Amino acid sequence: MAETSKRSTSDSSSTVRIGLVQHACQPGTEANLDKTIEMIRDAATQGAQIVATQELFASRYFPQIEDAKHFESAETIPGPTSERLRALAAELGVEITASLFEKRAQGIYHNTSIMISPDEGGRIIGLYRKMHIPDDPRFYEKFYFTPGDAPGHAIHPSPTSADRAGWQVQQTRSAKTGMLVCWDQWFPEAARLTALKGAQILFYPTAIGWCRSETTQERARQKDAWITIQRSHAIANGVFVAAINRVGTEDDLAFWGSSFVADPGGTIIAQATDDKEQVLIADCDLSLIDEHREGWPFLRDRRVDAYSQITQRYLSD
Amino acid sequence: MAETSKRSTSDSSSTVRIGLVQHACQPGTEANLDKTIEMIRDAATQGAQIVATQELFASRYFPQIEDAKHFESAETIPGPTSERLRALAAELGVEITASLFEKRAQGIYHNTSIMISPDEGGRIIGLYRKMHIPDDPRFYEKFYFTPGDAPGHAIHPSPTSADRAGWQVQQTRSAKTGMLVCWDQWFPEAARLTALKGAQILFYPTAIGWCRSETTQERARQKDAWITIQRSHAIANGVFVAAINRVGTEDDLAFWGSSFVADPGGTIIAQATDDKEQVLIADCDLSLIDEHREGWPFLRDRRVDAYSQITQRYLSD
Repeated sequence: MAETSKRSTSDSSSTVRIGLVQHACQPGTEANLDKTIEMIRDAATQGAQIVATQELFASRYFPQIEDAKHFESAETIPGPTSERLRALAAELGVEITASLFEKRAQGIYHNTSIMISPDEGGRIIGLYRKMHIPDDPRFYEKFYFTPGDAPGHAIHPSPTSADRAGWQVQQTRSAKTGMLVCWDQWFPEAARLTALKGAQILFYPTAIGWCRSETTQERARQKDAWITIQRSHAIANGVFVAAINRVGTEDDLAFWGSSFVADPGGTIIAQATDDKEQVLIADCDLSLIDEHREGWPFLRDRRVDAYSQITQRYLSD
Repeated sequence: MAETSKRSTSDSSSTVRIGLVQHACQPGTEANLDKTIEMIRDAATQGAQIVATQELFASRYFPQIEDAKHFESAETIPGPTSERLRALAAELGVEITASLFEKRAQGIYHNTSIMISPDEGGRIIGLYRKMHIPDDPRFYEKFYFTPGDAPGHAIHPSPTSADRAGWQVQQTRSAKTGMLVCWDQWFPEAARLTALKGAQILFYPTAIGWCRSETTQERARQKDAWITIQRSHAIANGVFVAAINRVGTEDDLAFWGSSFVADPGGTIIAQATDDKEQVLIADCDLSLIDEHREGWPFLRDRRVDAYSQITQRYLSD
């Protein structure tokens, strides 16, 4: 099928180097934050312009059980962790997108991503609260995380966040980015809406793994489905997709790592192992977005007159 | 990640055997219709309960050029081709979903799928007009095909079609089916809306191939993207997806066949070759829809309060 608009070359100014930080987590938070900071420094040394953490990088994956004691590890934003990362972004001159357990108010906690610009001594330029919250055995997130705010219900912007809720895009120094989180991966609507807001790279910090009881065949199927659905968002929207997952075994869960970056044609351009800590570097040539959207112009042909029922739960009764 | 609701077994009443008819096309229409009928008979002999044709099976892929003479090959529905297939469905006792070049009115032509029930001497129980129309080099479909009607704009039902336009579902003897066509493959909205209407199996008749000028690497990428996006619809919606593509070289296009069926976990359970004519048989265990939707309950967690802007072209300006 014709993709005829090949560009002769990408100029370097349109290529963005991103770094994905994949690691195992220890009990507590300090060691994990230290390790993440060390790996962000590594990524910056390798020339990364935007560095992304895995989901809830500062702790082990506590939603394996429901226990209110874990609320103690949540922080406000700004808060101690975001302050350290703000200073780090400014020092290194890189953008950092980090996944935090946010205490928004007493009894209102979120699974939140922030984007920090190195400008102005480090500034939070985006804050996204996970919209789709899972709940299945060993992933009891509905106990902990209030669903993110819907567009139009945003609270008024604070000085440190341009738009505090719902699908959104951040204008970083090098690209327009979108932040989504883990379970959001499975919902084409989330990728679509963020791409329509202008995102060129979608970041999905993730904590996904296998339960001990699962068969080898089922493990392979799950990991493949996880890669497939995210590659499909790259293809359908003509964007880069970066997934950042943890490794290591925590209680009943073995996290499968395999962090990756897919280009707008769905090709995986970088992928980490399923069991090792790794700073994954990928160069995202933003001119490929033109190339793919012109070659297979899906955004041109959307039937926006015929999608309104997508806001319904079910249409058969 | 837990999928704990494994059902002990599927009873045979919930397994539907489907047949996909993949073939090359000759000039004219009679030989292609004859071949298709022969292959539908083959599928029925093998126990298929629903048999699906490839896109525009009755002719070579004429949209490679824009020439008004091709409008002569369009037919009304009912018309000669649908009548032959109606009789065939009744004779064989199978459902047939067929892709036709429809003349709806003078100057209004569609790329249309019909579902024919074997009941009552053969009855058209569904008619779907391709909603997303491509137009890129060698695929000049916008010249020929009027975009399908949107939901709510349907013309009044005729005695032979329950719902003549837009996303819809057919209650066949063995499963609820959804019919989409080729370019629709690239739009998650189409699969979602049809699944929300209750479809258990989505059929995508297709005519997709490579231009002579394309590199081996680009060919592999395109075919892989085509498989990936359709597997993603199976995963996101927990449905079976069946893609039926032609083979053979027609002028500048080499069609890549590779018809396949994916189950609700995204696993390919049957796939044809990329160059041979083939009746592809697959058994679709409908209890897998329960299993996957319960294990990874995406439909439970959709943020229907936050999707309304999906009806917009773009949200960044």
